Amino acid sequence: MASSTAAAAQAATPLLKDELDIVIPTIRNLDFLEMWRPFFQPYHLIIVQDGDPKKTIRVPEGFDYELYNRDDINRILGPRASCISFKDSACRCFGYMVSKKKYIYTIDDDCFVSFFPPFHPSINFASVRSVSVKVAKDPSGKDINALEQHIKNLLSPSTPFFFNTLYDPYRDGADFVRGYPFSLREGAPTAVSHGLWLNIPDYDAPTQLVKPLERNSRYVDAVMTIPKGTLFPMCGMNLAFDRDLIGPAMYFGLMGDGQPIGRYDDMWAGWCTKVITDHLGLGVKTGLPYIWHSKASNPFVNLKKEYNGIFWQEELIPFFQSASLPKEADTVQKCYLELAKQVRAKLGKVDGYFNKLADSMVTWIEAWDQLNPPKGAVATANGTAKSK
Amino acid sequence: MASSTAAAAQAATPLLKDELDIVIPTIRNLDFLEMWRPFFQPYHLIIVQDGDPKKTIRVPEGFDYELYNRDDINRILGPRASCISFKDSACRCFGYMVSKKKYIYTIDDDCFVSFFPPFHPSINFASVRSVSVKVAKDPSGKDINALEQHIKNLLSPSTPFFFNTLYDPYRDGADFVRGYPFSLREGAPTAVSHGLWLNIPDYDAPTQLVKPLERNSRYVDAVMTIPKGTLFPMCGMNLAFDRDLIGPAMYFGLMGDGQPIGRYDDMWAGWCTKVITDHLGLGVKTGLPYIWHSKASNPFVNLKKEYNGIFWQEELIPFFQSASLPKEADTVQKCYLELAKQVRAKLGKVDGYFNKLADSMVTWIEAWDQLNPPKGAVATANGTAKSK
Repeated sequence: MASSTAAAAQAATPLLKDELDIVIPTIRNLDFLEMWRPFFQPYHLIIVQDGDPKKTIRVPEGFDYELYNRDDINRILGPRASCISFKDSACRCFGYMVSKKKYIYTIDDDCFVSFFPPFHPSINFASVRSVSVKVAKDPSGKDINALEQHIKNLLSPSTPFFFNTLYDPYRDGADFVRGYPFSLREGAPTAVSHGLWLNIPDYDAPTQLVKPLERNSRYVDAVMTIPKGTLFPMCGMNLAFDRDLIGPAMYFGLMGDGQPIGRYDDMWAGWCTKVITDHLGLGVKTGLPYIWHSKASNPFVNLKKEYNGIFWQEELIPFFQSASLPKEADTVQKCYLELAKQVRAKLGKVDGYFNKLADSMVTWIEAWDQLNPPKGAVATANGTAKSK
Repeated sequence: MASSTAAAAQAATPLLKDELDIVIPTIRNLDFLEMWRPFFQPYHLIIVQDGDPKKTIRVPEGFDYELYNRDDINRILGPRASCISFKDSACRCFGYMVSKKKYIYTIDDDCFVSFFPPFHPSINFASVRSVSVKVAKDPSGKDINALEQHIKNLLSPSTPFFFNTLYDPYRDGADFVRGYPFSLREGAPTAVSHGLWLNIPDYDAPTQLVKPLERNSRYVDAVMTIPKGTLFPMCGMNLAFDRDLIGPAMYFGLMGDGQPIGRYDDMWAGWCTKVITDHLGLGVKTGLPYIWHSKASNPFVNLKKEYNGIFWQEELIPFFQSASLPKEADTVQKCYLELAKQVRAKLGKVDGYFNKLADSMVTWIEAWDQLNPPKGAVATANGTAKSK
């Protein structure tokens, strides 16, 4: 079964094979890639090594990858490397910046191919970590291919301006329902595809502590657009996006070593991203695909990381809900720099951390432009891109 | 099987037995109620007979019901009966007005208990219309009880202010995900529960014409809140709401006989309702339960009814998206009258019909208050309620 599935997955030309990078932050050997081999092997991987650069990370044979550790990041970005978090998976955003592809898929190294039905007695999860991959089926009987579903989500439009009650109208067997204005049926370009998790849900530390046994076993067979004007908690565990459309907004902030907060990296990126996609008329989708999240992180450690964030998010949400960008902000970079200005002006009084974060947001954009010089510009070896 | 299911459904005390009315608009004998008997028999039915009042509508034995035909509506409302549509299922909203209960469930007479899996070979749909009801299972193996699911939706809070990626956080096995502000986890009172349809989807005439064979067979196991600020197409086929919270906004407009438009009754009610629930801090849910929609209506007849609406909705959506209610509008009635004023001011120029509709909106509120005098007021036999 395993080999035939793998063969089937590899036989067809993989979607966007040369236009998508898979970004993985890690502190350990990447044995988990064995499970993803039939789906990931055709793609290029960007591995961002978190923590001690002296440690060697083992990548299974046969994968095409580049790996960056802290020394590499310091060397490439110079003083601007200060915007990349250390000892935190937030460092993954360096991978978004260094990629040259149009699309990014990022995943945590404790996430696996999804199984449906979850907890099916015939699936022995322990055996699943071995090379003999059993790819299970979704309710319609098809193999779940998370990456393929993300690509489908990104390549079809979003519907941020009006809610469709039968979910994604572009999906086979679905459409816009009665009462959906025809002028809005073209939809908007999709910038982000946010996937979900079976088994261990993405809960905060207090919820983890209160519900240690809760597992997500509900497979909701839907993809939907998060409406314009609505914020959501974007999780970085199973996430894809269009770099050209939204890349520079995908900054995962200052977390981890030396910072007063952790586990808000993806949230921060999600709130900034949503304000900017709303402003630019782009779409954000959530729902399918599911991945299998194998292991809950330690809730006590998490509480320590989240502690400040739990208070601060009460101020952050109203800030982002009321944030408004000027008409002149017509690129992601301009939007992001404007947002940095507003962060300094309005969140600096919540905590001094936000002044530092606002500075880093500016540095991030400088670093992004350094590695991604605008077309028609020449990158200088050691500075911002200059126009020809 | 059939009788044991029915017995099981009746054995437990039905939820909200004395607090909910089921409103059904019809032009034909109500044989379809046989299928719903195990679920509906404990409740009181309000049947609104559409069209010729001389026709006798047969209701199966054993149901507790009151039936109103056009003569009854004219007698009860006098000149205000003009606000109730004739020869259109929009007349159902008279049932909302005449009810004395806190909750309403309304359903079309061509809708049946849902089947899952859809198109299961063991289900012969023809036989299902007989008294031998085969109640099918949802994916978790439980009987689908649409009314019970609506009641659960209405009795648990909504989350209109922030999006929860794992859908309804109040459902068993689910919760708020990381990054969801704790101050928002109490949610908001739920005013509306909008259910969906398997088999025949609720498409407009152009989509029906283009996709005559499309059937909805996707069971999406989710209930979600439609975010604040987002409009949706509310379908009246499978709908429940809290009369106390939102009843006076559930006016289904002027449709059918003598009007230039049909099939926008529920849409109109939905757009008005959403603007008002957003203003008052109430929630609207959509998703489960599914009902089985048995028969597509004639797309040619529908196109004739919808023709004007297809143009007008392009103006209506921006109107409702930008509608804003003043702080003083602190009851549904006040909100609705304010909205009527804005309809006259801004939509009158789209078509004279909207001036007539604005007048009817005012009449509807007068009629509502006539039949539902404010507490502490005495209803007069033939006029608006007067305060004591």
